[in-house]
Amino acid sequence: MKQESASSPTVSSPRTSGYGLLDTISSPADVRALRLDQLPELCADIRRFLIDHLSVNPGHFASSMGAVDIIVALHYVYDTPQDHLFWDVGHQAYAHKILTGRKEAFASQRKKGGISGFPSPLESEYDTFVTGHASNSISAALGRAIADRNTPGLENRKTVAVIGDASISGGLAFEGLNNVANYPNNLLIILNDNEMSIDANVGGLHAYLSELSTSAGYNKWRSRLYNAFRRKGVVTEEGKGRIQRFTNSVKSLVSGKQNIFEGLNIRYFGPFDGHDVIKIVRILKDIKDMETPRLLHLHTVKGKGYRPAEENPAKWHAPGLFDPETGEKISRDSKDSPLAWQEVFGRTLVELASDDDRVMGVTAAMPSGTSISRMMEVYPDRTFDVGISEGHAVTFSAGLATGGKRPFTAIYSTFLQRAYDNIVNDVCIQGLPVTFCIDRAGIVGEDGVTHHGLLDLAYLRCIPNMRVAAPADEETLRNLMFTSLHSDGPMAIRYPRGKATVKDWQTEMKVIEIGKGRIISETEGAKVAVLTVGPVLHEAEKAIHMLASKGINADLYDMIWVKPLDTDLLRRIAESHKAIVTVEDGVITGGFGTAVTEWCRDNGKDLCIRTLGAPDSWVTHGTVGELRHDCGYDSDGIVSAVFKAASES
Amino acid sequence: MKQESASSPTVSSPRTSGYGLLDTISSPADVRALRLDQLPELCADIRRFLIDHLSVNPGHFASSMGAVDIIVALHYVYDTPQDHLFWDVGHQAYAHKILTGRKEAFASQRKKGGISGFPSPLESEYDTFVTGHASNSISAALGRAIADRNTPGLENRKTVAVIGDASISGGLAFEGLNNVANYPNNLLIILNDNEMSIDANVGGLHAYLSELSTSAGYNKWRSRLYNAFRRKGVVTEEGKGRIQRFTNSVKSLVSGKQNIFEGLNIRYFGPFDGHDVIKIVRILKDIKDMETPRLLHLHTVKGKGYRPAEENPAKWHAPGLFDPETGEKISRDSKDSPLAWQEVFGRTLVELASDDDRVMGVTAAMPSGTSISRMMEVYPDRTFDVGISEGHAVTFSAGLATGGKRPFTAIYSTFLQRAYDNIVNDVCIQGLPVTFCIDRAGIVGEDGVTHHGLLDLAYLRCIPNMRVAAPADEETLRNLMFTSLHSDGPMAIRYPRGKATVKDWQTEMKVIEIGKGRIISETEGAKVAVLTVGPVLHEAEKAIHMLASKGINADLYDMIWVKPLDTDLLRRIAESHKAIVTVEDGVITGGFGTAVTEWCRDNGKDLCIRTLGAPDSWVTHGTVGELRHDCGYDSDGIVSAVFKAASES
Repeated sequence: MKQESASSPTVSSPRTSGYGLLDTISSPADVRALRLDQLPELCADIRRFLIDHLSVNPGHFASSMGAVDIIVALHYVYDTPQDHLFWDVGHQAYAHKILTGRKEAFASQRKKGGISGFPSPLESEYDTFVTGHASNSISAALGRAIADRNTPGLENRKTVAVIGDASISGGLAFEGLNNVANYPNNLLIILNDNEMSIDANVGGLHAYLSELSTSAGYNKWRSRLYNAFRRKGVVTEEGKGRIQRFTNSVKSLVSGKQNIFEGLNIRYFGPFDGHDVIKIVRILKDIKDMETPRLLHLHTVKGKGYRPAEENPAKWHAPGLFDPETGEKISRDSKDSPLAWQEVFGRTLVELASDDDRVMGVTAAMPSGTSISRMMEVYPDRTFDVGISEGHAVTFSAGLATGGKRPFTAIYSTFLQRAYDNIVNDVCIQGLPVTFCIDRAGIVGEDGVTHHGLLDLAYLRCIPNMRVAAPADEETLRNLMFTSLHSDGPMAIRYPRGKATVKDWQTEMKVIEIGKGRIISETEGAKVAVLTVGPVLHEAEKAIHMLASKGINADLYDMIWVKPLDTDLLRRIAESHKAIVTVEDGVITGGFGTAVTEWCRDNGKDLCIRTLGAPDSWVTHGTVGELRHDCGYDSDGIVSAVFKAASES
Repeated sequence: MKQESASSPTVSSPRTSGYGLLDTISSPADVRALRLDQLPELCADIRRFLIDHLSVNPGHFASSMGAVDIIVALHYVYDTPQDHLFWDVGHQAYAHKILTGRKEAFASQRKKGGISGFPSPLESEYDTFVTGHASNSISAALGRAIADRNTPGLENRKTVAVIGDASISGGLAFEGLNNVANYPNNLLIILNDNEMSIDANVGGLHAYLSELSTSAGYNKWRSRLYNAFRRKGVVTEEGKGRIQRFTNSVKSLVSGKQNIFEGLNIRYFGPFDGHDVIKIVRILKDIKDMETPRLLHLHTVKGKGYRPAEENPAKWHAPGLFDPETGEKISRDSKDSPLAWQEVFGRTLVELASDDDRVMGVTAAMPSGTSISRMMEVYPDRTFDVGISEGHAVTFSAGLATGGKRPFTAIYSTFLQRAYDNIVNDVCIQGLPVTFCIDRAGIVGEDGVTHHGLLDLAYLRCIPNMRVAAPADEETLRNLMFTSLHSDGPMAIRYPRGKATVKDWQTEMKVIEIGKGRIISETEGAKVAVLTVGPVLHEAEKAIHMLASKGINADLYDMIWVKPLDTDLLRRIAESHKAIVTVEDGVITGGFGTAVTEWCRDNGKDLCIRTLGAPDSWVTHGTVGELRHDCGYDSDGIVSAVFKAASES
């Protein structure tokens, strides 16, 4: 492991031994030393380990349980890390982490100083490529396969991309598939088809895959033929082409469908049972040395090996704490907790939709994550889950808007990066009234570097026609949504993961003035003004109280809008203070504080400005509180910045 | 037309009448008033008009000639603008412009104050959606089809998306196709298949389409069956399903291929001759009222109707001026002109590749546009044109880099927006040594709003690990490429469209210091410092001379790097001047000038800073010089800014 653990994380530590064969495994070489018939036992041991660990240290459960057999088979057949495994999304690869030297560290996963929840090349040489954003595995693996092929001495290394049936529907995966057959390479794509992404899968390709997979007649034929050919010894490099073409023809005849992958010149094998580890090993050995791009379609069950998860896989995607014996979820939420931001968003959207037929809801594979599922339940015909395809989600929303509709398009901040050109070209040039409901904005905590939504303020602020706001509380979120519905042009509203602030959130909605902030507190003679956007306001409030107790007064403003800025308020602030401290849950470079700085520059206000936010380096994982503290924009960081500003000005 | 022509453009004005039937057409209603058998004549008239006009006012020639018949048929069958046409890219839609009231304005196209070179909803109610970036038509049209279906009174409006065979290979188009069959809608997708994008098409889908199209046996069968069914009157709403399913089955049998679109639950019709306007009209009428998403595959020839273009369509994509009689190109370049930036890039890349096996070239459908074709000629195995798939291009490059290769990935600035998440997630988090060669950066001129590359400095600067540079001359471009090859981590090098600066560009390459700018000129006692990045340096040089002649001295610095900034030089500048004027060929918001401002803010340098660049509004079309002038960052704008800064400081 390359990553240094600067501080030892506090973790719930279930045992790391007592798992039978797994106790003997400290690297994939140990897996390869097992007999083939021992592999089912190893898979069962890994599953027990996962249940024990994930019940006390929450993580992505159901898909990791489902991928155990594939992972064991891959490390058994391939010479990792000389051969390269590319995971897609990577939340299914816990077994891979456990087998590649991270069994002891596993209890620290997703915690500050611990290992990441996703495979990461910064952490292990067995993790070939960054994971977390869906659909990138085929393109990246193709690059690696071609690089190795063009490097003397490495020509025989193998490259495998493992991608789920949801990820393969993303445009990037299609672009990869479309290019796979263009150049000579040995890439093997494994389609881990569990017929479900986080929520139910959508799209033509999904329907197509289901049909392929459930064609009983075909499956029977396919299986008989494969076994017959194996017996006759024709599964050789030469024979493989024949058997594959022949069985594909049979499949076409039997199922009435021909193969979409073959249409793209990719050899297709499958579908096979993705839980029969012995059979997977045999198939992988058969096709390992083929010098041609090919796809192996394996069928798996999310949550495999843990009945409650098998029965309700969506709820067990990331279940949180649970009792391993009963499968009961353990909630630490008190009944008096405020709702989550997304829950307020979802319920508010239903209110808007019920009053206005023009309101449409759009999400890209995250109906429950964004709570747009609330609207889906009530208005299924006006709510669209387009699957993992953020670009399409945005351009589709633009199309709805040209027809007079008012789409509210809810996408996580980090995934909205995938729709950047769609925002610029398809929405903002035309000034269409699409409301971007940017979920998981700012630091998200345990999911770490690939999941933080820290760039959005900077990358959106530079686009003409765009308006960008960040509510500090539920009432403002609701008013911003209402205001967007009753005004023209694109608007981005960004809010974080997790709990909002108050219990009584269901305020009456009203149109608020675009580009108007608000004064939170002013004190006669305060030299320093603290300007925030979003819920970091509450960190600033704490800081103001802490400072007041030390006799330092600072004024506090919730600017709400990053674009357009409240220039009247800014002028007043600049004229009555000696220093400004800005606070944002996003990168400092080009962000909100910089917007304030640009205004001061252009208006000849040369007061001292200190900007707090995320640094110009990657923020890793930990709790939101820990990471904010490290970045220096929790209450402590604000106190310290105001203190310096006050003493210098 | 909604667009106001503020100033009358100077144009070469060929006649707009004398084109037979075309003279009688001032709107699509006039087309619909013609007899069916008159349509071939109208198509011929339009082609004569296009040849006459485009030979003197250059534009996208070959694809526009190829799409004439489809466009005439669409306006004949559909009730535009009540029915909606969504063009993809849109450079093929000149005939659409001519038929929809822009015949007289056509001579002004691509000129300042004139009509756009692409369909634009800001210009005409017949232009439903913004065009210019490939692959967005299906998603946008699907949104519109669903919006109309959900709007009382508009349920019967029709929506058609017209997409080329190159555009349909983009991931966004696939995301659209994958979602088309999910919701009830009447979308018709027309695949205008000319077997060629700007350069030769690539990818599995292309191979697949060619095979579909060239299956002679199938085509004969298909045509006979269709005619037989028509005669028997079974081409009714009911019958259509049957005929289509039946003919698809026949096709599978005959061609040995089954339909990829049908795999996505989209009904497929074709391929048919896209130049037989009467037949296209009949087919469109047959399938117009179907209440199901469907795709009509039409085969066209780029340049159709003009032999020189038919024979060499790639060279006639955008041929510039030509003699309509002989087909000879008319060049205004003198032999003494410097090379284009892209030509210097392409030739330099070949030099790098010949010295270092690790160098790879990657482009997304723009081998000649970016001149990466130079490397492709010499090192075909190390140069990859991945088709219209910018996201894949970047992630594929990242994969190459994990294998020790050094990809130089050349993409136009505006299209790189499509790979934003790939840059962030797949390259910069891992800090991989991918060199982004950002072509067409800054104002591009005649192609207008969708093609300017004005956002890149702002959207790249906020990404941790990214380095961003802009050379002012060929020598610096070459040194930056060389330096990127010999350093670690991602680097973006951006340069504009058009001619570079010197004739003797082939300097010896050397590693330059990352984050080091250079002093161009300093004068004792100058109060104002002008800081530039990129070739706008030369505008600043002119300005400095003009100012000197008026007795005002200003110092000039070519900062080269937007990130990291040359902080030593900045400190020196800040300490010895009273004002700074920054100049960049990009948006001011969040750009280079703002980077300088951030540094001054964080380092307590409170001198006056004026930033010149593109405004926070969309820049339209015109010559580069005209648009720079309007934005205020040509030499005149710089003179004026320095003058103000000098007089105020």
